[in-house]
Amino acid sequence: MLAMCFDGEVVMRTDYPKPRCAHGDVLVEVGKAGICSTDLEVAKGYMGFGGVMGHEFVGRAVGGSRQWAGKRVVAEINCICGKCDMCKSGLANHCRNRTVLGIDGRDGCFAEYVTVPARNCHEVPEAVSDSEAVFIEPLAAAFQLIRQVKLAQSDRVVVLGDGRLAQLIVRVLRLRLRRTLMVGRHAAKLEAAEKQGVQTILESDFVPVKAADVVVDATGSAAGFELAMRAVRPRGTIVLKSTFAVAAAGGLNLAPLVIDEITVVGSRCGPFPEAIAALARREVDVAALISAEFPLADGPAAMAAARNGKNIKVLLDVRR
Amino acid sequence: MLAMCFDGEVVMRTDYPKPRCAHGDVLVEVGKAGICSTDLEVAKGYMGFGGVMGHEFVGRAVGGSRQWAGKRVVAEINCICGKCDMCKSGLANHCRNRTVLGIDGRDGCFAEYVTVPARNCHEVPEAVSDSEAVFIEPLAAAFQLIRQVKLAQSDRVVVLGDGRLAQLIVRVLRLRLRRTLMVGRHAAKLEAAEKQGVQTILESDFVPVKAADVVVDATGSAAGFELAMRAVRPRGTIVLKSTFAVAAAGGLNLAPLVIDEITVVGSRCGPFPEAIAALARREVDVAALISAEFPLADGPAAMAAARNGKNIKVLLDVRR
Repeated sequence: MLAMCFDGEVVMRTDYPKPRCAHGDVLVEVGKAGICSTDLEVAKGYMGFGGVMGHEFVGRAVGGSRQWAGKRVVAEINCICGKCDMCKSGLANHCRNRTVLGIDGRDGCFAEYVTVPARNCHEVPEAVSDSEAVFIEPLAAAFQLIRQVKLAQSDRVVVLGDGRLAQLIVRVLRLRLRRTLMVGRHAAKLEAAEKQGVQTILESDFVPVKAADVVVDATGSAAGFELAMRAVRPRGTIVLKSTFAVAAAGGLNLAPLVIDEITVVGSRCGPFPEAIAALARREVDVAALISAEFPLADGPAAMAAARNGKNIKVLLDVRR
Repeated sequence: MLAMCFDGEVVMRTDYPKPRCAHGDVLVEVGKAGICSTDLEVAKGYMGFGGVMGHEFVGRAVGGSRQWAGKRVVAEINCICGKCDMCKSGLANHCRNRTVLGIDGRDGCFAEYVTVPARNCHEVPEAVSDSEAVFIEPLAAAFQLIRQVKLAQSDRVVVLGDGRLAQLIVRVLRLRLRRTLMVGRHAAKLEAAEKQGVQTILESDFVPVKAADVVVDATGSAAGFELAMRAVRPRGTIVLKSTFAVAAAGGLNLAPLVIDEITVVGSRCGPFPEAIAALARREVDVAALISAEFPLADGPAAMAAARNGKNIKVLLDVRR
């Protein structure tokens, strides 16, 4: 089958073996897939991953476990053992033996077919299009934020970044908060958020004064984390939503965390049902975030487009 | 008066002007004082401080505000404006205009006399000796930890470090938890904690397996923070109790915070009344932590002793 793989470099393969279902797996014929910043990191060697890339997708179940047969599904990306202390204590996303679709130890969805555990699947309602369904996984990650951090309607929340994930985060926050401020570097991207009723400001105009109750760092850079420490009030909360934002942050001075008694909350994957419901109810608009769509065969061009700061979301149409 | 000052280097001065009380201040004749790791950092230039060093002390009120006249007192170290948003929202320790005794913009207590705002003072009960009273400020900082982080009796808590603050932290935790594990590098210091019923292990024997519910980093080093990330379980909490532990932590990889959805809580000063009560009720033993006591005139020798990893707490006797 056709697949976009990473084996030290990103390569398109036309002869990649079609995956076989293990017990409890579902074979999914991929419809559309989305490129996430994590994929861009995987392409740089993140997690030492090798194999079929990609973890955001929608498709149709065409084999394996019969529970989903013929249904249009999306799938959670953490594939768990169900037996370890994490799984047994309700923290299955942190399973000690997990593999992660297209990120860690398991082939992903930038291919004609992918297998996923049946328990990872969720049916996509009619009201949600394929292009929208691709956003379910990252939108769930945005919902995770309001699960982990209790917000009052009057809280002053600042989101740093105007990219893919930041756009979804402000859309989720808007459901809960009177006002959210997005701080970004791209006027056009900020405009996309403004159309959703989000207040925005260019980073060059933003003066941090340790006043925000919560700062969400979705910049993907160490500079973003430093800005967050200057923007959050004493005893406030910084939410880290990007794995590599703070990786190898050379010379980062974390003393403000102690001096200002800041709480930092790391936040990763989230609840699919909430994301699906929000899309089905049209509470969150994602269609306007799609900058470009490529056929899977043009995978490397799609990756380049996703890397371009002008674009927000880039999709792959696997059936074309 | 005699005072130990920092002005680019640590110097003893015999001619330092005796402080005058501003409105609302109390003049305190210092009895004993304690050397804390922050003082060692101030002596390296931390906060760009200049003036009389020191912030842990007990003494007798001999002038200024009459409320405390003649009483034996200790004092909180954050001197506040009472007017800013932080003061008005109950976060006075984070006052935007604060000065901090011997650390930031205000002369400290390594001198014959010190002035402190009357509202910062707490009377020391008879049951608490001068040597014990010197521990009230750092012990309050240890109590702050259990204020900020809700602990269940069965929680697995690991304290990294066996120094001054770590010793007080395990003593406080022992009041709340079934078991606490201290991880340190000094057999003799670990023994001091063991005598208080704390389980201990040498760092070289400690194998972190992401299993602790809470890890308190009181090592004062970036390596401690990295060890904390490897010792805490997914969705667990790391408490940072040391300002400089994580300052300029070059190349520190914070990605585990996001991947394991760890919460980091910065924790600084704490509640004096709880610390005073715990000492008065003999719930916390601190006397055994005193390694040496020097007259104020031998301040530099006392600083050197405090820097020596073999010692735990070094006191200054200001009346000698």
